[in-house]
Amino acid sequence: MEKRIIITGYGVVAKEFCKLLLSHSQSIKSMYGFYPKVTGIIGRKGMLYEAEGISLDELTSYGIGSDALTHYAEEKNIFLIPPKWNGDVLVECTPTNIETGEPGLSYMLNAIEAGMAIVSASKGAFVHSFKRIKEAARKKGVSMKFSGATAAALPTMDIGGYSLAGATITRIEGILNGTTNFILTTMTENNLSFDEALKIAQLKGIAERNPSLDVKGYDSACKILLLTNGLFETSFSLNDVQIEGIEHITKEKINEAQEKNERIKLLASVILKNEHLSLEVRPRTIQPSNPLYYVNGTNKGIVFETEEMDTICVTGGASHPRGAAAAVLKDVINLYRREL
Amino acid sequence: MEKRIIITGYGVVAKEFCKLLLSHSQSIKSMYGFYPKVTGIIGRKGMLYEAEGISLDELTSYGIGSDALTHYAEEKNIFLIPPKWNGDVLVECTPTNIETGEPGLSYMLNAIEAGMAIVSASKGAFVHSFKRIKEAARKKGVSMKFSGATAAALPTMDIGGYSLAGATITRIEGILNGTTNFILTTMTENNLSFDEALKIAQLKGIAERNPSLDVKGYDSACKILLLTNGLFETSFSLNDVQIEGIEHITKEKINEAQEKNERIKLLASVILKNEHLSLEVRPRTIQPSNPLYYVNGTNKGIVFETEEMDTICVTGGASHPRGAAAAVLKDVINLYRREL
Repeated sequence: MEKRIIITGYGVVAKEFCKLLLSHSQSIKSMYGFYPKVTGIIGRKGMLYEAEGISLDELTSYGIGSDALTHYAEEKNIFLIPPKWNGDVLVECTPTNIETGEPGLSYMLNAIEAGMAIVSASKGAFVHSFKRIKEAARKKGVSMKFSGATAAALPTMDIGGYSLAGATITRIEGILNGTTNFILTTMTENNLSFDEALKIAQLKGIAERNPSLDVKGYDSACKILLLTNGLFETSFSLNDVQIEGIEHITKEKINEAQEKNERIKLLASVILKNEHLSLEVRPRTIQPSNPLYYVNGTNKGIVFETEEMDTICVTGGASHPRGAAAAVLKDVINLYRREL
Repeated sequence: MEKRIIITGYGVVAKEFCKLLLSHSQSIKSMYGFYPKVTGIIGRKGMLYEAEGISLDELTSYGIGSDALTHYAEEKNIFLIPPKWNGDVLVECTPTNIETGEPGLSYMLNAIEAGMAIVSASKGAFVHSFKRIKEAARKKGVSMKFSGATAAALPTMDIGGYSLAGATITRIEGILNGTTNFILTTMTENNLSFDEALKIAQLKGIAERNPSLDVKGYDSACKILLLTNGLFETSFSLNDVQIEGIEHITKEKINEAQEKNERIKLLASVILKNEHLSLEVRPRTIQPSNPLYYVNGTNKGIVFETEEMDTICVTGGASHPRGAAAAVLKDVINLYRREL
């Protein structure tokens, strides 16, 4: 059995995904009972389409972005075409835009309308229009997964939705953003101010030049929002998350915590109380009894408190594009695997 | 849609499972699209069978074991009958016997032959005859799951099989036995000998009167064996696991580790090297950089190293019967859930 994949956006994650397919497709077929085949990739200049499957070997030798798609088309003597939605699953890898959700939102709605399943590495469309996408998918009876948009290689949706199936989750609390955790760790370990630590993070390529989405807590907020909506079948929006970033954390505050053997972490959380869920992101002081105390540097981690299984904590997971691509691949496999 | 469950063995885990179904069945139906119904429970004296579903409310008011089944039958004016296998899924909860695998082994083979899926909380049959059960299941095209037999509420099989689907696992290393971890922690924190710490564990009901399965490493070995066979599609037996327990760990060794800021943990591991897997259980000295360093007391934890997603560590999960029952329920849900 073949499953036809259409990818939207051909950035670093999409390219790593293609490289993973190149090396893993045969073993996926033998282990999980289906062969994943990329038949289309949609970029800004149009769609690269080959019904028999794009040669990933060739494509991945050409860099990223629309230029790579154009280069491939020229080599093969074919034209980029307007998008069409005749695959089994859409793998959405366009850049996250939480203001408009685009272009991912339109891509997803088109693909769902055509009966395709959705696997997304991108947060924008879900943050902007979770309810709309969910309802469209439900109406069409198609599945959607978004591990890549909720801390990627750290299995957050999997634990909450699969490993804790049937259990009552009463609280989720996580360090979901590697950049802010790196900054806080660097402030702690080297006795630096926020600005000094941020500069180091930028020099190392960990923080972006405009770091506000990370340091103001929005990236963490998007992730806890998607997790909550995905796991609790809710339709919260970003406005429902109380958000406080780390930009006002001072050296003094860090020192004060250290003296008490505590650490300051940017925690994203959702708490169930009296059948009401509250979502927040804010810097919190935690003690060594909290397993997230030991999650340092760019690492991430998440704790699930449940009524039936007590507390489960997961930490780690690569934060590089290959890790995100592997999370996407996992979602694709879990959509179609033959279960035995 | 209803799914008929037949339970074998009615000990504490089976009873907790029935109690969970009692409180959760309606929400399972609305969330996952099927209604789990217990139609039969097999004990030493025969099978309690009610085609319309056993009244779990009544049954769970009667204690455990065959006496409870008999009591229920008498109240309802029905007879216990010889086992029959006309359900959708077998939930295997008989006591673990790794010498013979029985009675679970025969129960499972009968159920598979009748086309039933298998969810097991018991290790014995799988440790004794993994290959035979697997082949029988494959031949009949039925699914089998055994989270309850591989550290229960700590999601080991889920992480390895679901969250890391498609990734290459190169090493698994875990603290899979709460009793030995409690003993080692107690020796460390209170400067006690093995015998002294064992006695405390026994007084607290953490270690059994005959603790040898735990302290000699066999329980850990069974779990890493099942994990390996389940995740790597192998057919190793207990003889393939190099096993060393903690019974020879001295106070001096513990102190020596502590002086170097290290800790001794009983680690069960499987390592992939040159396409060859090696399994072992032995006490190992680990450093603070290892996330298992912080897993103390009766807690458990496991680390997966992969090529694509780096390292994932999971810790926690209740070790009480309700936690094991919740792990069984999760497996049942994941067999039948309607995926959207």
